[in-house]
Amino acid sequence: MKKEFLLIPGPTPIPHEVAQAMSTEMFNHRGARFKALLDQLTASLKEVFQTEGRLFILTASGTGAMEAGIVNFLSPGQHVISLVNGAFGDRLAKIAEAYGIVVERLEAEWGRPLDYAALGDLLQKDRDGRIKAITVVHNESSTGMMNDVEAISRLRGGHPALLIVDAISSMGAVDIPVDRWNIDVCLTGSQKALMLPPGLALISVREKAWETAAQAGAPRFYFSLHKAQEFLEKGQTPFTPALSQMVAMQKGLELYFAEGREQCYARHRRMAGAARAAARALGLELLVDDRYASMTVTAFKKPERIDVAELRAAMRGRFGVEIAGGQGKLSGQTFRFGHLGAVSEMDVILGVAALEMALKSLGYPLDLGSGVKAAQEVIMAGPQG
Amino acid sequence: MKKEFLLIPGPTPIPHEVAQAMSTEMFNHRGARFKALLDQLTASLKEVFQTEGRLFILTASGTGAMEAGIVNFLSPGQHVISLVNGAFGDRLAKIAEAYGIVVERLEAEWGRPLDYAALGDLLQKDRDGRIKAITVVHNESSTGMMNDVEAISRLRGGHPALLIVDAISSMGAVDIPVDRWNIDVCLTGSQKALMLPPGLALISVREKAWETAAQAGAPRFYFSLHKAQEFLEKGQTPFTPALSQMVAMQKGLELYFAEGREQCYARHRRMAGAARAAARALGLELLVDDRYASMTVTAFKKPERIDVAELRAAMRGRFGVEIAGGQGKLSGQTFRFGHLGAVSEMDVILGVAALEMALKSLGYPLDLGSGVKAAQEVIMAGPQG
Repeated sequence: MKKEFLLIPGPTPIPHEVAQAMSTEMFNHRGARFKALLDQLTASLKEVFQTEGRLFILTASGTGAMEAGIVNFLSPGQHVISLVNGAFGDRLAKIAEAYGIVVERLEAEWGRPLDYAALGDLLQKDRDGRIKAITVVHNESSTGMMNDVEAISRLRGGHPALLIVDAISSMGAVDIPVDRWNIDVCLTGSQKALMLPPGLALISVREKAWETAAQAGAPRFYFSLHKAQEFLEKGQTPFTPALSQMVAMQKGLELYFAEGREQCYARHRRMAGAARAAARALGLELLVDDRYASMTVTAFKKPERIDVAELRAAMRGRFGVEIAGGQGKLSGQTFRFGHLGAVSEMDVILGVAALEMALKSLGYPLDLGSGVKAAQEVIMAGPQG
Repeated sequence: MKKEFLLIPGPTPIPHEVAQAMSTEMFNHRGARFKALLDQLTASLKEVFQTEGRLFILTASGTGAMEAGIVNFLSPGQHVISLVNGAFGDRLAKIAEAYGIVVERLEAEWGRPLDYAALGDLLQKDRDGRIKAITVVHNESSTGMMNDVEAISRLRGGHPALLIVDAISSMGAVDIPVDRWNIDVCLTGSQKALMLPPGLALISVREKAWETAAQAGAPRFYFSLHKAQEFLEKGQTPFTPALSQMVAMQKGLELYFAEGREQCYARHRRMAGAARAAARALGLELLVDDRYASMTVTAFKKPERIDVAELRAAMRGRFGVEIAGGQGKLSGQTFRFGHLGAVSEMDVILGVAALEMALKSLGYPLDLGSGVKAAQEVIMAGPQG
């Protein structure tokens, strides 16, 4: 028997109940049953996003919501500041560029904090309102780092630029109060903290952004949120949606709220803490400083004589544990644990145990169990239950 | 016990085996298991499309593939001829317009044949190659009509315009030999003849179109087929795909090829024939002439004193049979049976029986069983098995 464990940043494992719900029969997406489902999901998702604004469910990968978050709110020739310190920040910038938007990149080294002071300066000097939006990734799963969206929102102050936030790999797992932080557009995917298979993307829109959208000139059809709004008013989506994922989402959200938002955040904090403590105990370097550590993805720098592909193959082949390699320019230099969604502290321990054995088998010197012990201590120190 | 029967143009019912496959566990979409799956699906889908060209699987509703079929092959300011005689022909035109493409509409009344002679004239007079593409819907599910894509391809002759065909509600159920008919771009969705839940869209591209795509200037990111190609070469998709639908598609295609392509086409012909014979026996007018009849959707004109919403409510409420109303400008004037995918002749008979009882209960004069008998006769006359 070969059992497999998924510790990648997504798709994440799904609970049995969600998997079972995926096998739903089909029904009319223009009928009463669908309307009730859509209304219920939309209301629950607003609680996850902590927003009283608009919320739309799109049939697409998370990147579809990233595109929707750009093309509905901007026009070709307009300027945006794209904050980039990882692969997904770069992707948001590239989407904007693909649509003829002028992107002013404010870059930091991947895995290092953004230059918030420089952002503040740029905004303060922009007296004629050149900058129409700021794009940022809340949780860079490519580096295992969180950017400080609350600080960015505060720095923006009264500047009219929209704040467009990709929270694909953190929404639901980390406290992101969309309304309180005044995030104009916020988006995520189904295959992360919400414990669903990929195929749905979610996007919230606050009123200021909605008003902007009416004037935005980037071309769009499939990702038009005005079309989505028009149909939402009838309890429908403009195009035939991924019905199975929507039925399963009902179950996923039920499980999510049964755990409780705060408890879910705490679980993710404990998992991140456990992974990081294990790294330190094993003498592994973490890519990201504790102050900016992601709660859902932990990136380890590879030890000197270890090959990442070999390490992953050893973990997968002998122990059935799938972890992620480095992404983009970090390929070959880092490896990553995803610990989000239907992943428990015990999965992290199991991952650390496999990592220890794989590293040891590849000649890296370590005491078996020392990483596990460090992880256990973090888990036992945190709030229980 | 209230049992429900789905006779709408999609989503169509799914076989139990497909539903079960939807509850797959998650796995790495950047790993060996996914590569094997993607390679196998791509090869099988090329058989469905009867093409040796390229084929891409997108995570989106069918409309996403329509958008991909426009934005990858055209530039703003270029001219296309959009053939429009239904809601989806109109949608293709609107997508092109949304991207700044100049659409020359060649319209016919909804449910009436296109003016092929006028198309021939337009192409013949276009000596400077103004027209870059022709868009057409093969099977207008909005009217239950098929357009003659083979004739359009023949009329095009040596004109360089691309032929872009929406076969969302017919691919797999009707013989559409993409290569033989020289269809440059052809697209469909998962929730139709392929017997899967919605959430995947499929698009084929022949070499001439692929070469054009490199120069095409419409903005695109999520629907970029070049990105899809780049990742397909690694056995991946650019963005996290709808894994569950892809696993289920393996099962759906297995069932599809177990029936056999020709047998599947014949079953759809018998179902359309049965629905139409029933209509005639019941004195109901069909929207579309037999010569242009769709094999997957049949549209009935509503009898004079019958209200479509009431008729549908009666069929749904008392007999559990869900049919579709009229679409777009035909709303309130027609009702439609969808008979595609995992629908058998017996489902059509059941639908006709429910229709008879519902019509009779609403005061429409008919002999119970007369429509069913006509349907039975068609089914028994066709090739069996």
